Amino acid sequence: MTIILALDFGGTKLAAGLVNLGSREWLRYERRFSPHNASASTDLEIMRSLAHSLLQGKKPAAIGVSFGGPVDATMGKVRLSHHVSGWENIPLREWLEEEFGVAVSVDNDANVAALGEHRFGTGQGYESIFYITVSTGVGGGWILNGKPWRGAGGMAGEIGHMVVDPTGPPCLCGKRGCVERLASGPYMALDVREVLGREGERRRGGEIIQRLVENNLELVTGKVVSEAALLGDVLAEDILYRGAWGLGMGIGNVANLVNPQLFVLGGSVAKSGERWWEVLRKTARDTALPEVDFEIVAAGLGDDAPLWGAVAMAEQSCFRA
Amino acid sequence: MTIILALDFGGTKLAAGLVNLGSREWLRYERRFSPHNASASTDLEIMRSLAHSLLQGKKPAAIGVSFGGPVDATMGKVRLSHHVSGWENIPLREWLEEEFGVAVSVDNDANVAALGEHRFGTGQGYESIFYITVSTGVGGGWILNGKPWRGAGGMAGEIGHMVVDPTGPPCLCGKRGCVERLASGPYMALDVREVLGREGERRRGGEIIQRLVENNLELVTGKVVSEAALLGDVLAEDILYRGAWGLGMGIGNVANLVNPQLFVLGGSVAKSGERWWEVLRKTARDTALPEVDFEIVAAGLGDDAPLWGAVAMAEQSCFRA
Repeated sequence: MTIILALDFGGTKLAAGLVNLGSREWLRYERRFSPHNASASTDLEIMRSLAHSLLQGKKPAAIGVSFGGPVDATMGKVRLSHHVSGWENIPLREWLEEEFGVAVSVDNDANVAALGEHRFGTGQGYESIFYITVSTGVGGGWILNGKPWRGAGGMAGEIGHMVVDPTGPPCLCGKRGCVERLASGPYMALDVREVLGREGERRRGGEIIQRLVENNLELVTGKVVSEAALLGDVLAEDILYRGAWGLGMGIGNVANLVNPQLFVLGGSVAKSGERWWEVLRKTARDTALPEVDFEIVAAGLGDDAPLWGAVAMAEQSCFRA
Repeated sequence: MTIILALDFGGTKLAAGLVNLGSREWLRYERRFSPHNASASTDLEIMRSLAHSLLQGKKPAAIGVSFGGPVDATMGKVRLSHHVSGWENIPLREWLEEEFGVAVSVDNDANVAALGEHRFGTGQGYESIFYITVSTGVGGGWILNGKPWRGAGGMAGEIGHMVVDPTGPPCLCGKRGCVERLASGPYMALDVREVLGREGERRRGGEIIQRLVENNLELVTGKVVSEAALLGDVLAEDILYRGAWGLGMGIGNVANLVNPQLFVLGGSVAKSGERWWEVLRKTARDTALPEVDFEIVAAGLGDDAPLWGAVAMAEQSCFRA
């Protein structure tokens, strides 16, 4: 049997899957969290051991790799990671081709996930989709005319740093009120910690968050904010739905600009419940011109969208060869 | 000789040009202002007379039409005009094909101008460009992978109603602080009239504007605002460069999202002088991520970009036939 190996270097997770060429079910599949002080070399070491444990001595026909950060897809080179140190200019394709002796394709996770959803997920049969991942960061990937569109310099899809509120909170990128600054998990957690950390101030809500983390603000994450909002915490609601508003503004703007048929949303924050989706959809609809039609749906492949996209990339390289 | 007829229905101007197939110089060319109370029927009447006066009884091989408003390019049907009444659902292609007995292509002016600049103007040799017209309105048109990208419903390119300042002035579209609301000629004139119309209020500048229009605020236009800014009027400067800031924000966001090689700017407001370009370029550069490269240049074909794009569309229909 011809087998395909798919690898996903996420911001906080590492995953690998093995399929028979043409199959739509995993032959074998493994997933690990990155260690707390992960670096490029620890992540690479874990991924190599995952890959070899999956392959059990067999040689795949091709390898597809999804990477959570900017990638030069033509060269198969990682530019950097915003979450894990040491990834600057790592020739990931070259290293993996040397180690495994087969063709390797590498691309940014949002581009890869867009391809995955288009080939195997909710985006099947659509000519134009914009995939958005909303988790540690916010990023996007394009399918236009049925094919990936990466942009002139491979940087297309950056909805995360679209400014939707110029008077909003400052973002690490140097601007204010970016989509990622409002809608991503870590930034929502930061905003909650900041409000709860201020002493002696009157504020609305926060009690449920405090209870969930047993008064240890260090433990507040995006997931905790979502949970607290669903339990009715007013502070958590304010911050979570402000994020949905920001992302909705971004999506409406993108609809006006590029007019894709479908928006597909993946990532942990997209699991924040019905009201998050309502705020997002209403804001996007109000922001887009009335003549501009689109749908916004959840990723059909869930967290495995990048891994299945990596399978699609690897399969393409088999058919090219 | 095989001849091609190109027609341009602008918001305020009507133009027609005639070329020999393959030539890059006008054989004949005419341009008229729309009458003050223009309607679809007066504009059509003027355009028919322009066309027949250019053709002098000859039959063109094909006709290309640029229209200043939303168009269903597949059906060759005008959806509406935001500036001239009576254009709702006019089957322009059908009418012109009946009258002239040849193939007619119709598209929105920004899409057509993008094609014109790509084939004959500043965009030659580029694979991806975004053309933006900044005049009565603000609209955009895409070339991606060397071909026009019109969007799933033909609505792509709408940078004009991207919100860049949610707390900004209200726009007719129902939102606040859209690019068009800040940067288009009529809206800049409106803002000036409003400030100058308020009695007894302390304000900075405005004297030069008052002098240019001889105290008749009705006569303030975008062009007057640009002129007054160049002459040092502080109020005109505030409003003109706020517009350049808004458009710069929009361009930076588009660069992050789609990463085209080149932005080409046409329309009357793009002739507002060096400082307008400086503010625009700096804002776009600051808004885009550092890794995202692009250039912003003036339309090489100037006001004739839509007309030359119409020539390109008509030529394509000749080669298809």
